[in-house]
Amino acid sequence: MNLTIDQGNSSTKIGFFDKSEIIATHKLIFLDKKTLRKYTDLHPPDNVIISSVTDETAYLEEHFSYLPGKLIFFDHQTPIPIQNKYRSKTTLGKDRLAAVIGATSLYPETPLLVVDAGTAITYDLFADNTFLGGNISPGLQMRFAALHRQTKHLPLVSSGESPFWGTTTEEAIMAGVQNSVEMELTSYITAVEKQFSGAKTIITGGDAIFFASYTKNLIFVHPNLVLSGLNRIIEYNA
Amino acid sequence: MNLTIDQGNSSTKIGFFDKSEIIATHKLIFLDKKTLRKYTDLHPPDNVIISSVTDETAYLEEHFSYLPGKLIFFDHQTPIPIQNKYRSKTTLGKDRLAAVIGATSLYPETPLLVVDAGTAITYDLFADNTFLGGNISPGLQMRFAALHRQTKHLPLVSSGESPFWGTTTEEAIMAGVQNSVEMELTSYITAVEKQFSGAKTIITGGDAIFFASYTKNLIFVHPNLVLSGLNRIIEYNA
Repeated sequence: MNLTIDQGNSSTKIGFFDKSEIIATHKLIFLDKKTLRKYTDLHPPDNVIISSVTDETAYLEEHFSYLPGKLIFFDHQTPIPIQNKYRSKTTLGKDRLAAVIGATSLYPETPLLVVDAGTAITYDLFADNTFLGGNISPGLQMRFAALHRQTKHLPLVSSGESPFWGTTTEEAIMAGVQNSVEMELTSYITAVEKQFSGAKTIITGGDAIFFASYTKNLIFVHPNLVLSGLNRIIEYNA
Repeated sequence: MNLTIDQGNSSTKIGFFDKSEIIATHKLIFLDKKTLRKYTDLHPPDNVIISSVTDETAYLEEHFSYLPGKLIFFDHQTPIPIQNKYRSKTTLGKDRLAAVIGATSLYPETPLLVVDAGTAITYDLFADNTFLGGNISPGLQMRFAALHRQTKHLPLVSSGESPFWGTTTEEAIMAGVQNSVEMELTSYITAVEKQFSGAKTIITGGDAIFFASYTKNLIFVHPNLVLSGLNRIIEYNA
């Protein structure tokens, strides 16, 4: 049994894998020992991998000291099954790299645009078994929040159904933000398909389903792409 | 002589017009009586129009009590030379409506996409002498700031030259934000040209030149579109 832990900006996702098959996933607001024990008692792990945006992980090292297998703190020095052309490897989001590795396990030998639609949106390019680079832009909720916080008079709007052109200020913001992410996603898909014939777009993250419903292009939604990638890294290092 | 004042979120632009010809423009950080007097002594105005995001304008009413002509506080009740289909007229940004009026004075009888690339980006649609609606999305600097402020680990990046795909985190943000506004602008232009044959795109605002350099489409940069629109409103009400 493998346990994969993806500690993000606002929450932590954990996933239990039996070899490459996902058994259970949970979303946690706090990653403390007590919460962890609840789940690890249910599925005692042999190997654990932790990908975290914070460095305060000493308590996890202690917590998992009993493991029969490996405990991996995923970082830029962890051996991975793909080439990585990103130059600033220490600042590359671990979840981005894990999502790309997860996507290529699902779609081997395929050029991929891997989109993670969360707090920020990342667009990552993978071809010829190589992570070629990628971009970061503000996520859906971040755009709504920014319009409200960084101006004097715009209200806080959230996502919903809107016409293409707004005729009220709420609609103008809703359409403006939602069109902007849809146009961006569609433009990236077009650019990647032009550059790499047969390329597929894989999307993950909290807003994945919303994004997928918004674009006319064929894209594949995989909610657990980062966890799948982390599990692939455990298998590669086992 | 007409004086037009556009008080925005972060600064105020003033413009002096001799009939429809622009004589001088100034950008002010503070709009106080002393600063105003400096400019109005130089070009004594007959008519003044004020478009402001704030309601604290009593001191301006007092300051301009001596005017030989009209003092107009531009709001949703001011008569304008175009039809307005926006439903929430009281929350429609005055600068947006003025920019559209300015654009149609410059390009009469033409369907227009009017873009104001400032703190926020507004995309407004005008055809058949009617403002049809429009959208609001985060501006260039707002996107950079949001990525930094609303995440734990992303740095504050500013605009510059970047490849299409980032291979460092700074490049990923720079390309991510800049591509996002370029893709959005291009997509709106394509949508409007498809809907209205012969449509033109007019762009104004602090980032207008940057945006214009970023898109392959033909767009027209007019730095003083809002002021031109305000002047057109003075003429219409004179």
